[in-house]
Amino acid sequence: MESIERLNMALNIVLVEPEIHTNTGNIGRLSLASGSRLHLVKPLGFELTDARLKRAGLDYWKYVDLEIHENASAFFEKYSTKPMALFSSRADQSYLSIDFKDEMFLIFGKESSGLSTEIVNAYSDHLYKIPIYSPHIRSLNLANSVSIVVYEALRNLS
Amino acid sequence: MESIERLNMALNIVLVEPEIHTNTGNIGRLSLASGSRLHLVKPLGFELTDARLKRAGLDYWKYVDLEIHENASAFFEKYSTKPMALFSSRADQSYLSIDFKDEMFLIFGKESSGLSTEIVNAYSDHLYKIPIYSPHIRSLNLANSVSIVVYEALRNLS
Repeated sequence: MESIERLNMALNIVLVEPEIHTNTGNIGRLSLASGSRLHLVKPLGFELTDARLKRAGLDYWKYVDLEIHENASAFFEKYSTKPMALFSSRADQSYLSIDFKDEMFLIFGKESSGLSTEIVNAYSDHLYKIPIYSPHIRSLNLANSVSIVVYEALRNLS
Repeated sequence: MESIERLNMALNIVLVEPEIHTNTGNIGRLSLASGSRLHLVKPLGFELTDARLKRAGLDYWKYVDLEIHENASAFFEKYSTKPMALFSSRADQSYLSIDFKDEMFLIFGKESSGLSTEIVNAYSDHLYKIPIYSPHIRSLNLANSVSIVVYEALRNLS
Protein backbone atom coordinates (compact mmCIF):
# COMPACT_ATOMS: atom_id res chain seq x y z
CA MET A 1 0.00 0.00 0.00
CA GLU A 2 1.17 3.47 -0.91
CA SER A 3 2.20 5.64 2.03
CA ILE A 4 0.32 8.90 2.52
CA GLU A 5 2.38 12.04 2.77
CA ARG A 6 1.71 14.14 5.86
CA LEU A 7 0.80 17.80 5.77
CA ASN A 8 2.27 20.17 8.36
CA MET A 9 -0.64 22.57 8.05
CA ALA A 10 -4.42 22.54 8.09
CA LEU A 11 -7.07 24.65 6.44
CA ASN A 12 -10.69 25.33 7.36
CA ILE A 13 -13.26 25.11 4.57
CA VAL A 14 -16.50 26.91 5.45
CA LEU A 15 -19.77 26.49 3.54
CA VAL A 16 -22.38 29.04 4.58
CA GLU A 17 -25.89 27.64 4.01
CA PRO A 18 -25.02 25.13 1.28
CA GLU A 19 -28.06 23.97 -0.72
CA ILE A 20 -27.03 20.96 -2.80
CA HIS A 21 -25.97 17.76 -1.07
CA THR A 22 -23.75 16.46 -3.91
CA ASN A 23 -21.63 19.63 -3.71
CA THR A 24 -21.23 19.26 0.05
CA GLY A 25 -20.43 15.55 -0.41
CA ASN A 26 -17.72 16.33 -2.94
CA ILE A 27 -16.34 19.08 -0.70
CA GLY A 28 -16.23 16.57 2.17
CA ARG A 29 -14.04 14.38 -0.06
CA LEU A 30 -11.88 17.43 -0.85
CA SER A 31 -11.59 18.20 2.89
CA LEU A 32 -10.21 14.71 3.48
CA ALA A 33 -7.89 14.93 0.46
CA SER A 34 -6.45 18.22 1.70
CA GLY A 35 -6.38 17.52 5.45
CA SER A 36 -8.88 20.33 6.07
CA ARG A 37 -11.67 20.75 8.61
CA LEU A 38 -15.10 21.25 7.04
CA HIS A 39 -17.49 23.77 8.64
CA LEU A 40 -21.15 23.77 7.62
CA VAL A 41 -23.21 26.79 8.63
CA LYS A 42 -26.98 26.18 8.98
CA PRO A 43 -29.57 26.28 7.54
CA LEU A 44 -28.56 23.48 5.16
CA GLY A 45 -30.60 22.67 2.07
CA PHE A 46 -30.46 18.93 2.82
CA GLU A 47 -30.47 16.48 5.74
CA LEU A 48 -27.25 15.10 7.19
CA THR A 49 -28.73 11.86 8.51
CA ASP A 50 -26.90 8.54 8.42
CA ALA A 51 -29.55 7.03 6.13
CA ARG A 52 -29.22 9.88 3.63
CA LEU A 53 -25.43 9.74 3.60
CA LYS A 54 -25.52 5.98 3.11
CA ARG A 55 -27.94 6.30 0.19
CA ALA A 56 -25.69 8.94 -1.40
CA GLY A 57 -22.72 6.53 -1.26
CA LEU A 58 -20.62 8.83 0.91
CA ASP A 59 -18.80 6.01 2.71
CA TYR A 60 -15.92 8.38 3.49
CA TRP A 61 -18.16 10.93 5.24
CA LYS A 62 -17.52 9.48 8.74
CA TYR A 63 -13.84 10.40 8.41
CA VAL A 64 -14.53 14.09 7.58
CA ASP A 65 -13.41 16.47 10.35
CA LEU A 66 -16.76 18.26 10.56
CA GLU A 67 -18.02 21.20 12.59
CA ILE A 68 -21.64 22.37 12.35
CA HIS A 69 -22.65 25.96 13.21
CA GLU A 70 -26.20 27.02 14.06
CA ASN A 71 -26.00 30.19 11.95
CA ALA A 72 -23.57 32.65 10.36
CA SER A 73 -23.43 34.96 13.41
CA ALA A 74 -22.42 32.08 15.69
CA PHE A 75 -19.68 31.06 13.25
CA PHE A 76 -18.22 34.54 12.77
CA GLU A 77 -18.35 35.22 16.52
CA LYS A 78 -16.53 32.00 17.41
CA TYR A 79 -13.68 32.50 14.92
CA SER A 80 -13.51 36.32 14.79
CA THR A 81 -9.74 36.45 15.42
CA LYS A 82 -8.73 33.88 12.77
CA PRO A 83 -7.28 34.66 9.33
CA MET A 84 -10.09 34.56 6.78
CA ALA A 85 -10.65 34.75 3.04
CA LEU A 86 -14.20 35.01 1.70
CA PHE A 87 -15.20 34.27 -1.88
CA SER A 88 -17.65 36.17 -4.05
CA SER A 89 -18.05 36.78 -7.78
CA ARG A 90 -18.55 40.43 -6.74
CA ALA A 91 -14.99 40.71 -5.35
CA ASP A 92 -12.26 42.77 -7.04
CA GLN A 93 -9.15 40.84 -5.95
CA SER A 94 -8.15 37.47 -7.41
CA TYR A 95 -7.68 34.44 -5.12
CA LEU A 96 -4.09 34.40 -6.42
CA SER A 97 -3.35 37.50 -4.33
CA ILE A 98 -4.35 35.86 -1.01
CA ASP A 99 -1.64 35.76 1.65
CA PHE A 100 -2.43 32.17 2.64
CA LYS A 101 -1.82 31.20 6.26
CA ASP A 102 -1.92 27.99 8.24
CA GLU A 103 -5.38 27.41 9.79
CA MET A 104 -6.90 29.98 7.44
CA PHE A 105 -10.69 29.97 7.05
CA LEU A 106 -11.80 29.80 3.40
CA ILE A 107 -15.45 30.87 3.34
CA PHE A 108 -17.97 30.21 0.54
CA GLY A 109 -21.63 31.15 0.15
CA LYS A 110 -24.63 29.21 -1.11
CA GLU A 111 -24.93 27.92 -4.68
CA SER A 112 -27.86 30.12 -5.76
CA SER A 113 -26.76 33.52 -4.50
CA GLY A 114 -23.37 33.34 -2.74
CA LEU A 115 -22.63 35.09 0.55
CA SER A 116 -25.19 37.59 1.87
CA THR A 117 -24.71 41.32 1.20
CA GLU A 118 -24.32 41.78 4.96
CA ILE A 119 -21.35 39.39 5.12
CA VAL A 120 -19.80 40.73 1.89
CA ASN A 121 -19.94 44.29 3.24
CA ALA A 122 -18.60 43.35 6.70
CA TYR A 123 -15.59 41.49 5.26
CA SER A 124 -14.92 43.50 2.09
CA ASP A 125 -11.16 43.66 2.79
CA HIS A 126 -10.96 39.87 2.78
CA LEU A 127 -13.06 39.28 -0.33
CA TYR A 128 -11.65 37.40 -3.32
CA LYS A 129 -12.91 36.01 -6.61
CA ILE A 130 -11.86 33.32 -9.06
CA PRO A 131 -11.38 35.07 -12.42
CA ILE A 132 -13.84 33.98 -15.12
CA TYR A 133 -13.11 34.62 -18.79
CA SER A 134 -16.59 34.34 -20.28
CA PRO A 135 -19.65 36.62 -20.36
CA HIS A 136 -21.93 33.56 -20.50
CA ILE A 137 -21.57 32.35 -16.90
CA ARG A 138 -21.52 34.20 -13.59
CA SER A 139 -19.62 31.67 -11.53
CA LEU A 140 -18.20 28.19 -11.30
CA ASN A 141 -19.85 25.28 -9.54
CA LEU A 142 -19.39 25.63 -5.75
CA ALA A 143 -17.35 22.44 -5.26
CA ASN A 144 -15.14 23.36 -8.22
CA SER A 145 -14.51 26.83 -6.76
CA VAL A 146 -13.58 25.38 -3.36
CA SER A 147 -11.25 22.87 -5.03
CA ILE A 148 -9.36 25.56 -6.96
CA VAL A 149 -8.82 27.70 -3.86
CA VAL A 150 -7.92 24.86 -1.48
CA TYR A 151 -5.30 23.35 -3.80
CA GLU A 152 -3.83 26.81 -4.43
CA ALA A 153 -3.58 27.20 -0.63
CA LEU A 154 -1.86 23.80 -0.35
CA ARG A 155 0.57 24.78 -3.10
CA ASN A 156 1.43 27.96 -1.19
CA LEU A 157 1.73 26.44 2.27
CA SER A 158 3.17 22.96 1.83
CA MET B 1 -21.53 45.51 -17.00
CA GLU B 2 -18.14 44.27 -15.94
CA SER B 3 -15.67 43.85 -18.77
CA ILE B 4 -14.26 40.38 -19.32
CA GLU B 5 -10.52 40.05 -19.37
CA ARG B 6 -9.14 38.29 -22.46
CA LEU B 7 -6.82 35.33 -22.31
CA ASN B 8 -3.93 35.06 -24.76
CA MET B 9 -3.85 31.31 -24.55
CA ALA B 10 -6.21 28.37 -24.75
CA LEU B 11 -6.27 24.93 -23.21
CA ASN B 12 -7.94 21.70 -24.27
CA ILE B 13 -9.85 19.75 -21.63
CA VAL B 14 -10.39 16.12 -22.62
CA LEU B 15 -12.84 13.76 -20.89
CA VAL B 16 -12.39 10.16 -21.99
CA GLU B 17 -15.69 8.26 -21.64
CA PRO B 18 -17.27 10.44 -18.92
CA GLU B 19 -20.16 8.73 -17.12
CA ILE B 20 -21.99 11.36 -15.05
CA HIS B 21 -23.76 14.22 -16.80
CA THR B 22 -23.55 16.68 -13.88
CA ASN B 23 -19.74 16.39 -13.90
CA THR B 24 -19.59 17.02 -17.66
CA GLY B 25 -22.03 19.94 -17.22
CA ASN B 26 -19.85 21.52 -14.55
CA ILE B 27 -16.74 20.94 -16.66
CA GLY B 28 -18.49 22.67 -19.58
CA ARG B 29 -18.96 25.69 -17.29
CA LEU B 30 -15.29 25.46 -16.33
CA SER B 31 -14.32 25.30 -20.03
CA LEU B 32 -16.16 28.57 -20.64
CA ALA B 33 -14.70 30.17 -17.50
CA SER B 34 -11.18 29.29 -18.58
CA GLY B 35 -11.50 29.87 -22.34
CA SER B 36 -10.81 26.19 -23.02
CA ARG B 37 -12.07 23.80 -25.69
CA LEU B 38 -13.89 20.76 -24.28
CA HIS B 39 -13.30 17.37 -25.93
CA LEU B 40 -15.63 14.46 -25.11
CA VAL B 41 -14.47 11.01 -26.13
CA LYS B 42 -17.27 8.44 -26.69
CA PRO B 43 -18.86 6.30 -25.39
CA LEU B 44 -20.56 8.78 -23.01
CA GLY B 45 -22.61 7.62 -20.05
CA PHE B 46 -25.41 10.06 -20.90
CA GLU B 47 -27.20 11.64 -23.87
CA LEU B 48 -26.21 15.05 -25.21
CA THR B 49 -29.61 15.93 -26.66
CA ASP B 50 -31.10 19.42 -26.54
CA ALA B 51 -34.04 18.22 -24.43
CA ARG B 52 -31.69 16.65 -21.87
CA LEU B 53 -29.50 19.72 -21.65
CA LYS B 54 -32.52 21.98 -21.24
CA ARG B 55 -33.90 19.80 -18.43
CA ALA B 56 -30.51 19.90 -16.68
CA GLY B 57 -30.58 23.72 -16.72
CA LEU B 58 -27.37 23.99 -18.74
CA ASP B 59 -28.36 27.22 -20.50
CA TYR B 60 -24.67 28.03 -21.08
CA TRP B 61 -23.97 24.75 -22.87
CA LYS B 62 -24.54 26.22 -26.37
CA TYR B 63 -21.54 28.51 -25.84
CA VAL B 64 -19.14 25.67 -24.97
CA ASP B 65 -16.43 25.13 -27.61
CA LEU B 66 -17.09 21.41 -27.95
CA GLU B 67 -15.45 18.64 -29.96
CA ILE B 68 -16.78 15.07 -29.87
CA HIS B 69 -14.55 12.09 -30.70
CA GLU B 70 -15.86 8.67 -31.69
CA ASN B 71 -13.37 6.80 -29.51
CA ALA B 72 -10.03 7.14 -27.74
CA SER B 73 -7.98 5.90 -30.72
CA ALA B 74 -9.51 8.53 -33.01
CA PHE B 75 -8.72 11.26 -30.46
CA PHE B 76 -5.11 10.22 -29.83
CA GLU B 77 -4.47 9.78 -33.56
CA LYS B 78 -5.83 13.24 -34.44
CA TYR B 79 -3.79 15.09 -31.81
CA SER B 80 -0.71 12.86 -31.57
CA THR B 81 1.77 15.74 -32.02
CA LYS B 82 0.26 18.06 -29.37
CA PRO B 83 1.58 18.64 -25.84
CA MET B 84 -0.37 16.42 -23.45
CA ALA B 85 -0.75 15.78 -19.75
CA LEU B 86 -2.81 12.80 -18.58
CA PHE B 87 -4.19 12.37 -15.07
CA SER B 88 -4.34 9.24 -12.98
CA SER B 89 -4.28 8.45 -9.27
CA ARG B 90 -1.67 5.81 -10.23
CA ALA B 91 0.82 8.47 -11.44
CA ASP B 92 4.04 9.29 -9.57
CA GLN B 93 4.50 12.96 -10.53
CA SER B 94 2.39 15.79 -9.12
CA TYR B 95 0.43 18.09 -11.46
CA LEU B 96 2.55 20.91 -9.98
CA SER B 97 5.53 19.61 -11.95
CA ILE B 98 3.80 19.92 -15.35
CA ASP B 99 5.54 22.17 -17.87
CA PHE B 100 2.29 23.81 -18.98
CA LYS B 101 2.08 24.98 -22.59
CA ASP B 102 -0.40 26.95 -24.65
CA GLU B 103 -2.92 24.63 -26.38
CA MET B 104 -1.96 21.78 -24.07
CA PHE B 105 -4.32 18.82 -23.86
CA LEU B 106 -5.32 17.96 -20.27
CA ILE B 107 -6.75 14.43 -20.37
CA PHE B 108 -8.96 12.80 -17.71
CA GLY B 109 -10.51 9.33 -17.50
CA LYS B 110 -13.95 8.16 -16.43
CA GLU B 111 -15.32 8.64 -12.92
CA SER B 112 -15.48 4.95 -11.93
CA SER B 113 -12.06 3.75 -13.04
CA GLY B 114 -10.01 6.54 -14.64
CA LEU B 115 -8.02 6.12 -17.83
CA SER B 116 -7.58 2.60 -19.22
CA THR B 117 -4.40 0.65 -18.45
CA GLU B 118 -3.61 0.74 -22.17
CA ILE B 119 -3.64 4.57 -22.24
CA VAL B 120 -1.79 4.87 -18.91
CA ASN B 121 0.99 2.58 -20.18
CA ALA B 122 1.26 4.29 -23.57
CA TYR B 123 1.59 7.78 -22.04
CA SER B 124 3.43 6.98 -18.78
CA ASP B 125 5.91 9.83 -19.29
CA HIS B 126 3.06 12.35 -19.36
CA LEU B 127 1.13 10.99 -16.39
CA TYR B 128 0.38 13.19 -13.38
CA LYS B 129 -1.64 12.99 -10.18
CA ILE B 130 -3.23 15.42 -7.76
CA PRO B 131 -1.74 14.63 -4.33
CA ILE B 132 -4.26 13.31 -1.78
CA TYR B 133 -3.49 13.40 1.93
CA SER B 134 -5.93 10.81 3.24
CA PRO B 135 -6.04 7.00 3.22
CA HIS B 136 -9.86 7.11 3.18
CA ILE B 137 -10.41 8.22 -0.42
CA ARG B 138 -8.78 7.18 -3.68
CA SER B 139 -9.45 10.29 -5.71
CA LEU B 140 -11.30 13.59 -5.95
CA ASN B 141 -14.53 14.14 -7.87
CA LEU B 142 -13.76 14.37 -11.61
CA ALA B 143 -14.98 17.97 -12.08
CA ASN B 144 -13.03 19.06 -9.00
CA SER B 145 -9.85 17.43 -10.33
CA VAL B 146 -10.24 19.14 -13.72
CA SER B 147 -10.85 22.49 -11.99
CA ILE B 148 -7.66 22.24 -9.91
CA VAL B 149 -5.50 21.41 -12.92
CA VAL B 150 -7.05 23.94 -15.33
CA TYR B 151 -6.72 26.87 -12.92
CA GLU B 152 -3.13 25.88 -12.12
CA ALA B 153 -2.49 25.91 -15.90
CA LEU B 154 -4.07 29.39 -16.17
CA ARG B 155 -1.94 30.62 -13.28
CA ASN B 156 1.18 29.36 -15.07
CA LEU B 157 0.35 30.62 -18.54
CA SER B 158 -1.51 33.91 -18.13
